[in-house]
Amino acid sequence: MTFSPLTPELVVAFEGIVSPAHVLTAQRTEALQYEAYGRDHTEDFHFAPDVVLRPGTTEEVSQIMRLCHEHRVPVTARGAGTGLSGGALPIHNGVVLSMERFNKILHIDERNLQVTSEPGVVTEALQNAVKEVGLFYPPDPASKGSCFLGGNLSQSSGGPKAVKYGTTRDYVLNLQVVLPNGDVIWTGANTLKYATGYNLTQLMVGSEGTLGIITQVVFRLLPYPQHNILMLVPFRQEAQAAEAVSAVFRAGIIPSGMEFMEREAIAWSSDYLKIPLTLPEDITAHLLIELDGQDIEQLYKEAEQVYEVLEKYDVGEILLADTAGQKDDLWKIRRNIGNSVRYNSVYKEEDTVVPRAELPTLLKGVKEIGQRYGFKSVCYGHAGDGNLHVNIIRGTLTDEEWNVGLREPISEIFQLCVKLGGTISGEHGIGLVQKPYMHIALKEANLHLMRGIKQVFDPHGILNPGKIF
Amino acid sequence: MTFSPLTPELVVAFEGIVSPAHVLTAQRTEALQYEAYGRDHTEDFHFAPDVVLRPGTTEEVSQIMRLCHEHRVPVTARGAGTGLSGGALPIHNGVVLSMERFNKILHIDERNLQVTSEPGVVTEALQNAVKEVGLFYPPDPASKGSCFLGGNLSQSSGGPKAVKYGTTRDYVLNLQVVLPNGDVIWTGANTLKYATGYNLTQLMVGSEGTLGIITQVVFRLLPYPQHNILMLVPFRQEAQAAEAVSAVFRAGIIPSGMEFMEREAIAWSSDYLKIPLTLPEDITAHLLIELDGQDIEQLYKEAEQVYEVLEKYDVGEILLADTAGQKDDLWKIRRNIGNSVRYNSVYKEEDTVVPRAELPTLLKGVKEIGQRYGFKSVCYGHAGDGNLHVNIIRGTLTDEEWNVGLREPISEIFQLCVKLGGTISGEHGIGLVQKPYMHIALKEANLHLMRGIKQVFDPHGILNPGKIF
Repeated sequence: MTFSPLTPELVVAFEGIVSPAHVLTAQRTEALQYEAYGRDHTEDFHFAPDVVLRPGTTEEVSQIMRLCHEHRVPVTARGAGTGLSGGALPIHNGVVLSMERFNKILHIDERNLQVTSEPGVVTEALQNAVKEVGLFYPPDPASKGSCFLGGNLSQSSGGPKAVKYGTTRDYVLNLQVVLPNGDVIWTGANTLKYATGYNLTQLMVGSEGTLGIITQVVFRLLPYPQHNILMLVPFRQEAQAAEAVSAVFRAGIIPSGMEFMEREAIAWSSDYLKIPLTLPEDITAHLLIELDGQDIEQLYKEAEQVYEVLEKYDVGEILLADTAGQKDDLWKIRRNIGNSVRYNSVYKEEDTVVPRAELPTLLKGVKEIGQRYGFKSVCYGHAGDGNLHVNIIRGTLTDEEWNVGLREPISEIFQLCVKLGGTISGEHGIGLVQKPYMHIALKEANLHLMRGIKQVFDPHGILNPGKIF
Repeated sequence: MTFSPLTPELVVAFEGIVSPAHVLTAQRTEALQYEAYGRDHTEDFHFAPDVVLRPGTTEEVSQIMRLCHEHRVPVTARGAGTGLSGGALPIHNGVVLSMERFNKILHIDERNLQVTSEPGVVTEALQNAVKEVGLFYPPDPASKGSCFLGGNLSQSSGGPKAVKYGTTRDYVLNLQVVLPNGDVIWTGANTLKYATGYNLTQLMVGSEGTLGIITQVVFRLLPYPQHNILMLVPFRQEAQAAEAVSAVFRAGIIPSGMEFMEREAIAWSSDYLKIPLTLPEDITAHLLIELDGQDIEQLYKEAEQVYEVLEKYDVGEILLADTAGQKDDLWKIRRNIGNSVRYNSVYKEEDTVVPRAELPTLLKGVKEIGQRYGFKSVCYGHAGDGNLHVNIIRGTLTDEEWNVGLREPISEIFQLCVKLGGTISGEHGIGLVQKPYMHIALKEANLHLMRGIKQVFDPHGILNPGKIF
């Protein structure tokens, strides 16, 4: 795919569409601000955009796309830049389309338990807004305080609550999308059931900005669960922590959170946040288990059942969080593991996922591969859905070891995932960094179909080129 | 699209693949049996296949597809033939690919709460099998006692429990699919989270046999809810019944069933089944409300809350089913409305769906349109998801009125659905009969994308030609 360079005439045309204030170029923008549009949270990658556009309306996005389609200019849409697979990086330069001005919640429909929003709204802001009227938007990626809904949609993001409530995918009813040629469509209807032709809505979710630009979303909502119970369970053997996960489900309980954290994950994060936490010497891993619902007595019953299951394992003293502050602290520790690892070292995060009962085997395999190839990993993640984030720490690895040497062991980790019935990304997407490993998860026939779909939506290949495949 | 006629050589080739016993032609098959392969439950349509094939393995399906792809022979896959939009009708003749021999449940994975099954298993048989080990497969179309999982997947089928538990779509983790050229793929992974390229799994669900042949499916399961409460609530005003639906949800309760039935729907069905039911003169509609969960005391609390909500409406005496037999009877009545209508008259069933709070407006609109155009309709359906089945009764309408005259009022009904934020099919699919109305729900840009996707999967257009668009 060859693209056209960005001409001064195009810049002028963009200024006519979004006004000069929202056309940023390197020449006339403060360096640090401009540089940020070429990064996300993936390792230490940087790619410079030729121009950054900040449209404010669907019509503006449509006009931009029409122009770029006509002139074969690459367009990489950008949310908050918290992605972990390089999805927002403009690797072929061109336009970075920042959706930051699409930051309005348009309509909370209390009668239908739905919300219509622009994609540049921060996930937690949406959660808080609907909570005020007693409603619940469950998807909660670790970065919920800064990530955008649009990014969540692009990567099919999950989070701790996915184990009970599903991921972003499960709440999307309808999307307004600007296609690469500038056409504006709604992908579906604002209904809980939909059987009207191919499901374009679900095709858009997880397509990482390669098929169209999402400009509005309609989510379904739930009644807000009034109560929750949170417990931190220390284990003396990592494998037992992973095993206990499956046992809880088999007892008929579906927790609203079931997080696994290696000793180092929890230690680094509590240090990073300066939240003191007692960690006895013999504890190697923790499970953070949350139960939620409308009835507190019902939750106490469930908590008792969880205790009964855990009694069969070699666990330390279970911490039952009994104030809102304590609960917040525990979740903060869990959510900041990624930040604390980043604070300690550059790292590669592999977003492995397997059927949940295979988690102990995956964890063992990851450690064994690490030992064999000589790298250190910090593992944590959503054990309830078998989604283990493997953070490979750069530490003292050379450029060669980091950039080339790790390909083989990462391939081995992914092969193990696939062998166990899993795949190479659960919620971070493929983007740039997992692209070389797609053939491990998918046959050529699958990739052929995906490339064909891409061609149908984006015949000139201008949207987020170089990603996924 | 022009297709090749079925040659005697091809019939011989098919016999080499599936054995002569499973190659049925009109000449050598008992007439009634053969004729059944040309029908489904849609009005009184019949289209004769040139040949019926009954493969037993994925490899056989693959060989059949390769041959038909090469020779441009239309292939219409068929489940149990209970579809209501004509999806299984071989309107271009050719091969009917009956999946009836794919009738094995392959593996119930109790550790991961998953089941792997062939698509020719009857939905209820799967439900019963997993229930035996304490697990729950919620999707329950009215025809669950006879329909196949493969048909449910093709049409994205729902059922009463969809209001709480979602539709077939929400339980599919992974599909084995034979593509039109004979290639065999798995669309995803056996994991709860998936962010590995475009979601081919969700693209297949609801694609009505036009993109590939599903030969295996992996579903996720839930713990079986141990208890339920069922109540039949009679209303003196239809509109109030529709309004009460939304009020129950706003009170924070998510029932596992929330069914609306017009007086005639429930009367016809109880007559048809010979289950006596007292229907006071002044009652015009009913809601059938089910609550389920693991804790009966919790359910009693919820039932009380439902009563509180209902008190605000003009309801008759609420029947609380107190034996398993009584519950069965009530559900049987609900599930047999379609059959009882069919028993009374040929009918067209429109599968309208809107955001649930718009149901009263939709219902009123349907009746008004019926009065204006002079036809009678019996309405019932899944009020909890705004999914109203509008049964237009043929009665004494002439062929002209039935085949041509109804197009205008049906268009008006669908236009109303779209205006209310809904669409033209919630769970029955488009198939043959809703095809003329697709432009009401979707823009040309949407249809263009769908046609493009079809072309990618099926370049010769041999799979279920003439359906959807």
